[in-house]
Amino acid sequence: MQKIRLFTPGPTMVSPEAMLAMAQPLDHHRTSGFRDTLKDCVELLRYVYRTEATPMVVTGSGTAAMEAAMLGCCKPDGKTLVCHAGKFGERWRDILVRFNLPHVDYEKEYGQGFSPDEVAAKLKEHGDITAVIFVHSETSTATVSDAQGIAKVCRDHNVLCMVDGITSIGAIPFKMDEWGIDVGVTGSQKAMMLPPGLGIVALSDRAWETIDSHQAPAYYNDLKMYRKSMDKWDTPYTPNNQMVSGLKFTLTQIKETGIDNILANTALLAKATRAAVEALGLKVFSDAPVDSVTAVCVPDGVDEAQWRKDLRGMYGIHCAGGQGHIKGKIIRLNHMGYVDAVDTVGAIAALEWTLAKQGYKFEAGAGTGAFGKVIQGT
Amino acid sequence: MQKIRLFTPGPTMVSPEAMLAMAQPLDHHRTSGFRDTLKDCVELLRYVYRTEATPMVVTGSGTAAMEAAMLGCCKPDGKTLVCHAGKFGERWRDILVRFNLPHVDYEKEYGQGFSPDEVAAKLKEHGDITAVIFVHSETSTATVSDAQGIAKVCRDHNVLCMVDGITSIGAIPFKMDEWGIDVGVTGSQKAMMLPPGLGIVALSDRAWETIDSHQAPAYYNDLKMYRKSMDKWDTPYTPNNQMVSGLKFTLTQIKETGIDNILANTALLAKATRAAVEALGLKVFSDAPVDSVTAVCVPDGVDEAQWRKDLRGMYGIHCAGGQGHIKGKIIRLNHMGYVDAVDTVGAIAALEWTLAKQGYKFEAGAGTGAFGKVIQGT
Repeated sequence: MQKIRLFTPGPTMVSPEAMLAMAQPLDHHRTSGFRDTLKDCVELLRYVYRTEATPMVVTGSGTAAMEAAMLGCCKPDGKTLVCHAGKFGERWRDILVRFNLPHVDYEKEYGQGFSPDEVAAKLKEHGDITAVIFVHSETSTATVSDAQGIAKVCRDHNVLCMVDGITSIGAIPFKMDEWGIDVGVTGSQKAMMLPPGLGIVALSDRAWETIDSHQAPAYYNDLKMYRKSMDKWDTPYTPNNQMVSGLKFTLTQIKETGIDNILANTALLAKATRAAVEALGLKVFSDAPVDSVTAVCVPDGVDEAQWRKDLRGMYGIHCAGGQGHIKGKIIRLNHMGYVDAVDTVGAIAALEWTLAKQGYKFEAGAGTGAFGKVIQGT
Repeated sequence: MQKIRLFTPGPTMVSPEAMLAMAQPLDHHRTSGFRDTLKDCVELLRYVYRTEATPMVVTGSGTAAMEAAMLGCCKPDGKTLVCHAGKFGERWRDILVRFNLPHVDYEKEYGQGFSPDEVAAKLKEHGDITAVIFVHSETSTATVSDAQGIAKVCRDHNVLCMVDGITSIGAIPFKMDEWGIDVGVTGSQKAMMLPPGLGIVALSDRAWETIDSHQAPAYYNDLKMYRKSMDKWDTPYTPNNQMVSGLKFTLTQIKETGIDNILANTALLAKATRAAVEALGLKVFSDAPVDSVTAVCVPDGVDEAQWRKDLRGMYGIHCAGGQGHIKGKIIRLNHMGYVDAVDTVGAIAALEWTLAKQGYKFEAGAGTGAFGKVIQGT
């Protein structure tokens, strides 16, 4: 009977309605029904991405979609600036290494974001860079980078701007066309409010020019094959059509709610959570906290493993821990998608109760009180 | 209110029970619950594959799993014999071409299978072959090849035996260890009775030796990363854990029913369908019909597009058509998974009704009658 409350920054909470939408009788994918559904998803994704491009749906995780974009846009005769300060940025660096793609490795400390000036300096230092990759919202450290500013720098230097938007698109402001972003990638299990299983990638005309200028070392993840099929609202290989139906369902909810309202909700939950963290005498980990997920430093005297075990075991609150060298030092709470103030104040209360259990000192209700003030705007 | 009856050879019918199993509240994938589920799936897949190897579950279609196996086992300093006589065999050839992997292209006519003697002759002709790829059940032509015999030839010549078992594993006899198969690939949407979205690959120790002898040009589809994670019953990237739960559900049903009973049901439906086809004066397309799916030649005077349109529009029977140069010449009926004699006799009846509508002459009930005799064993 214990309720599981997913506060992990992916998978995020999925509504019973979305689950039941995907539990409808399965149909075949080579049908007008599927083509209509895929077409509707593209229209709705254009709304979320704020783009005129054609977002493509890949059966696989966000990593598959990002790999597809990278093999197309990061050419052996080009050079990619890969900015990383966390686990996901490191993954994109690892892909470049694996495929022997020329790159400049730009590493910063975990918890730091990347600024337009820093990227501009790197582009000046390395005159032969053709593409920049960065993580808009680095999920592993809950840190934001200035996507709008970096995109402008990329435009000014005439290099491709490739954005891991896996925990940003649909969660924090992201304006693909207006900002001049060339590649935007996300996954189903974040702001799209679905289980994992689909990756999504949208590409600008500039990105397509690069992709068309060579043959990527890819087959399953070859974006040209996807584009060719998408001309007929089809997919090159058998898609997870059950999840594409789910995607239409949740994207329709997003459209009906209004993307700006959703971004505002996410931002408000993050702001209230940060206030609660501060009121409890805890620290937010990041130098540039993102609104899609909050990383809280584990205070001295508190055992992180026990803390997360109690949160889940006693109260069903499933938070993520740290990754890499910050494992054990932070816990992370999601604000994306199907989560509201009542869910989140419950998580804050459970944080209090489980901290108290370990002897951490604070005024009972300080966290939930501070949280509530932000929510109420008082 | 129209019922959709999926007689396509993938996706096949999915039970409401399986759909609802996947509609259960989503949990996180880095949990003991998910690890237990994945471990159970592996045990159950071992039962279906008849292997001691550790089948691995990839989030993606069967093509992703096959590509992963090929990039690991087909080396740039080796040479792969790729046998193809249909659309899926051609796909594996295309992957070798895309990745510039040395290969011998062994093409036969659509509707023909490959025999052990033929493969042995090719291995003798080309002394430097290191791996053989063939499609056990070529779905596009509904044709079987002798996997047991070809595997023996591969062992005798000390080359890897790589089997596309996407519509064979769990549907027709497949004994990975006993037959000496090195690579066996399948997908969720066939005999596993689930929607599309997962690929499955099992590898012999010999296959792993080859994989370990070089670095495959792969990241998302790098099997070494999967093996490393599987040591902890984990996955390298976010898995579609909702579908892995579904996989445990359907594999448990398969184990409870007994794999031999399932293979017998599939074979009986195929035999009865072939008898019905013959009784209607129609022809089975393949020279070596497989039991997982039956391809029926479209008779003279019958318009295939109209036939399939009527089957679906009037009776909800969704059959597959032909692919490549046999498009318009065949229709295909699935026998895999969650489909029984009553479902199938309904499809045969609808075949009769829609043929009659186009003026095709036969004795009414001849198809269903012949079908019933086989089912009843009379």
